[in-house]
Amino acid sequence: MFGTSLRRAARLHGNRCAFKCQERSIDWSTLFERAIRLSTGLGRLGIVRGDRLAMLLPNGLEGIELFASSALSGHVIVPLNFRWSIDEIADSLVDCSAKALVVDDHFRDSGVAAAARAQTTLIDGGSRPAEGSIIYESLFDAFSFSSSMNDCAESDLLAIFYTGGTTGRSKGVMLSHGNAAYVAMASMAEGAYGTDEIYLHTSPSFHIAGAMNVYQAFICASRNVVFPRFEAGAALAAISTEGVTQSLLVPTMIGMLLDHPSFNDTDTSSIRRILYGAAPMTDALLDRAMAAFPRAQFMQLYGMTETASNACILHSRIFTVPGGRRLLSRSVGRAMFGSEVGIFGPTGDLLPPGQVGEIAIRGPGVMLGYWNRPDATAAAVRGGWMHTGDGGSMDAEGYVYLADRIKDMIISGGENIYSLEVEAILMQHPSVRQCAVIGIPHPVWGEAVHAIVTLNAGASFDERALIDFCRGKLSGYKLPRSIEQRDELPLTAAGKVLKRDLRAPFWAHLAPSPRAVTH
Amino acid sequence: MFGTSLRRAARLHGNRCAFKCQERSIDWSTLFERAIRLSTGLGRLGIVRGDRLAMLLPNGLEGIELFASSALSGHVIVPLNFRWSIDEIADSLVDCSAKALVVDDHFRDSGVAAAARAQTTLIDGGSRPAEGSIIYESLFDAFSFSSSMNDCAESDLLAIFYTGGTTGRSKGVMLSHGNAAYVAMASMAEGAYGTDEIYLHTSPSFHIAGAMNVYQAFICASRNVVFPRFEAGAALAAISTEGVTQSLLVPTMIGMLLDHPSFNDTDTSSIRRILYGAAPMTDALLDRAMAAFPRAQFMQLYGMTETASNACILHSRIFTVPGGRRLLSRSVGRAMFGSEVGIFGPTGDLLPPGQVGEIAIRGPGVMLGYWNRPDATAAAVRGGWMHTGDGGSMDAEGYVYLADRIKDMIISGGENIYSLEVEAILMQHPSVRQCAVIGIPHPVWGEAVHAIVTLNAGASFDERALIDFCRGKLSGYKLPRSIEQRDELPLTAAGKVLKRDLRAPFWAHLAPSPRAVTH
Repeated sequence: MFGTSLRRAARLHGNRCAFKCQERSIDWSTLFERAIRLSTGLGRLGIVRGDRLAMLLPNGLEGIELFASSALSGHVIVPLNFRWSIDEIADSLVDCSAKALVVDDHFRDSGVAAAARAQTTLIDGGSRPAEGSIIYESLFDAFSFSSSMNDCAESDLLAIFYTGGTTGRSKGVMLSHGNAAYVAMASMAEGAYGTDEIYLHTSPSFHIAGAMNVYQAFICASRNVVFPRFEAGAALAAISTEGVTQSLLVPTMIGMLLDHPSFNDTDTSSIRRILYGAAPMTDALLDRAMAAFPRAQFMQLYGMTETASNACILHSRIFTVPGGRRLLSRSVGRAMFGSEVGIFGPTGDLLPPGQVGEIAIRGPGVMLGYWNRPDATAAAVRGGWMHTGDGGSMDAEGYVYLADRIKDMIISGGENIYSLEVEAILMQHPSVRQCAVIGIPHPVWGEAVHAIVTLNAGASFDERALIDFCRGKLSGYKLPRSIEQRDELPLTAAGKVLKRDLRAPFWAHLAPSPRAVTH
Repeated sequence: MFGTSLRRAARLHGNRCAFKCQERSIDWSTLFERAIRLSTGLGRLGIVRGDRLAMLLPNGLEGIELFASSALSGHVIVPLNFRWSIDEIADSLVDCSAKALVVDDHFRDSGVAAAARAQTTLIDGGSRPAEGSIIYESLFDAFSFSSSMNDCAESDLLAIFYTGGTTGRSKGVMLSHGNAAYVAMASMAEGAYGTDEIYLHTSPSFHIAGAMNVYQAFICASRNVVFPRFEAGAALAAISTEGVTQSLLVPTMIGMLLDHPSFNDTDTSSIRRILYGAAPMTDALLDRAMAAFPRAQFMQLYGMTETASNACILHSRIFTVPGGRRLLSRSVGRAMFGSEVGIFGPTGDLLPPGQVGEIAIRGPGVMLGYWNRPDATAAAVRGGWMHTGDGGSMDAEGYVYLADRIKDMIISGGENIYSLEVEAILMQHPSVRQCAVIGIPHPVWGEAVHAIVTLNAGASFDERALIDFCRGKLSGYKLPRSIEQRDELPLTAAGKVLKRDLRAPFWAHLAPSPRAVTH
């Protein structure tokens, strides 16, 4: 569908600005032509349908062109996390047998070192191309619209996204053209996106949410503003000058926008839809955001790389209309068109409404599998159900509530404690800005509840007061036994707290344990 | 996607009325359960995934159940045109090797005779089941949710629709699960349909437009009111009592609603969207309709059975907003998300904007092919383009304008004359209600332009005055040479004029000609 869509965009909206990134922009007609040229140039290098092409780039026009070219001609794009170490980059190049790696000025040193280690051809789009690399712009010399640029089959591999995020070693999630086309189309059918939007892209495109925003744009030929990285002041300026109507923001980013000194002086009235997800949204922040953007719909998205991003959607209209059910805002929403959610118990049975188990998702968004990992694929996808690793429940109307990452659950004295539940209470304290609750070793209970917090400006840390604040709001066994303060929490690119990194020092001195190995 | 969707509908909207037909109704939970039972019962008869199951039924709950059961378990539904002769019904049963034919009281006699001729098992859902038939309700005895009721692949065959419509012998159009899922989802993404609708179904489900409305309902779990046949008074009553928000209507039906004596006394304020298509909409009728339904969006759909219904959409907002371009209402719209349109010249080259050629459509809605007709499939689908047989042009912005059915084009003295162009002028005359322009034999020019008209109440027929009316509005060679009056025009089930039938008597006395054979 993406080949058809890019040709459609060039035909119907050829002069419309497709993507704008800082001082550069490209219209749909030019993007289509450059995607054909790029495919032609890559074909001459021997990179054709099915071959993997890795990129190590910040959000920008080169990345957009690579996404378009791969969607058009069937080579498989592998956007790598630029925050990775050289070892991690080289490992993934070897894992997927990438035929080439594209870099530019931003992460050239890492790319050069990793490509050398993996013996991968380097393509350089920067101003001082690395020695021995192929000049990115030289790939655009020829224009040849070959039959291979007809549409790929929906079952063809479109992209590989390396994930692992907060747990385990990285796996390559294989998404098909059909996976991405379905999620894009279903999201539009749910009203989350449309052709008339001016969309602000803040998520990196190696993250599925950022990538899906690009694929959605290909289908509906919207106008798009791309930021290499999120910075609240620049985002506010862009909203005002570009008339941005919509963005996907993690809660942390929403907080940064609202807290920015220029927020009150910025005209943000063009914003009509804010999508959020990837991390818990507190009632307090949602209330502030709804008040600050009174014309905007808010929609929470829930999903994962393995479901090509969102599988559930929560529409703010259910709790913002008069008489709306405000408490539903604590749900991550319901299965979107074409998808379904099931909650599985430990023995593999589907649980009735209200019971907590593992959230699983079935539908056309579920990945083809993990690259070269049939074992991991079989463990994750059973009977068509993608087992998310998230604990949660579903009510009788199908609203899904997250309890916790299964692996972030704390087991203390034989009791299951969901870290999100404890975090939700701590977040209600006026001093607390962010918090993460983890299990740390305890000689008697196995694990003890430990909290790590950052504080709001001007607040002072008082461990005892914070524990007392939780008392009465939580059962005794769920109370934090210890709390520490830090200046910041380690975050993934998606804005999730890296609990693995927070836990590691507490467990490092112990003999290898399942937790230390698998988390 | 339909299996997932039906389970989702039962889970999220189980108590919502799914379909209401006269005194009967069924909720989503019950429909899902009955679809499983029906699949189980059909499986016991040996009708399983891939087998063809024909139905000869008016719109009603049995048909909905058969659609749901086939979408869930993978047998292939073949909805037959109940206006066909016994020969035509028997031919199609034989052509697709149907394992059974489902009938009820309405068309039992035709079904019994055709099934006997084709030696097809009969399933009877009526009150006085035919001798030797299987009782429809007996198929619901057992509930067994087998693994075969997991989702079918998107490339699996979903249904066969026999077409031929206005030209040629009937061919079985094979549509996949992916074809129907794509068109349903893209239509929703374009804003043509949603979960909050109360939808009035008037098109028979053997017609692709009627069938797609059912598949869309499966995905978005809307509320639906089904009519066995269109009758303006009953439709108006349903709009008022059920609070209907939306319907798909051919222009003739819109005219019948507006002309009905009870229109002015009926509360139609619930209508917020009217989809129309299948036949030309005149400016005059569109203006009347927009004035009569001031709250409604109007959307024109253009497509065909071979593209799983609509591939182009025209949004009324482009010509109803202040300063809107009213003349665009004469277009059939632009390629919808995921599809593209091309205009091909006689030598197979893509034509530039403004030139008239054959309209072709490419995208995920294009059929798998014609059943057992690889020759006809290869002739129609070339390079992924479905050649529609419609003549037309596209402007620089991608708006598509119909000129004519290629086979309805008149060639007179070597000049191409598009019958639609002549009809559009005749329709501007205040006396003319309907008209059809055809080519009839002429000893010198090959064909001559002939018009057949029906008149508005109270108007009198004056052939000379009508020809004079066209003079100056049309080039001389396009002027009708003769005009006749009739009480009515022969229509297909989709509301299109059967020009083949109008032409036949004029050509019958001639030796076999290409036109007589292929039209």
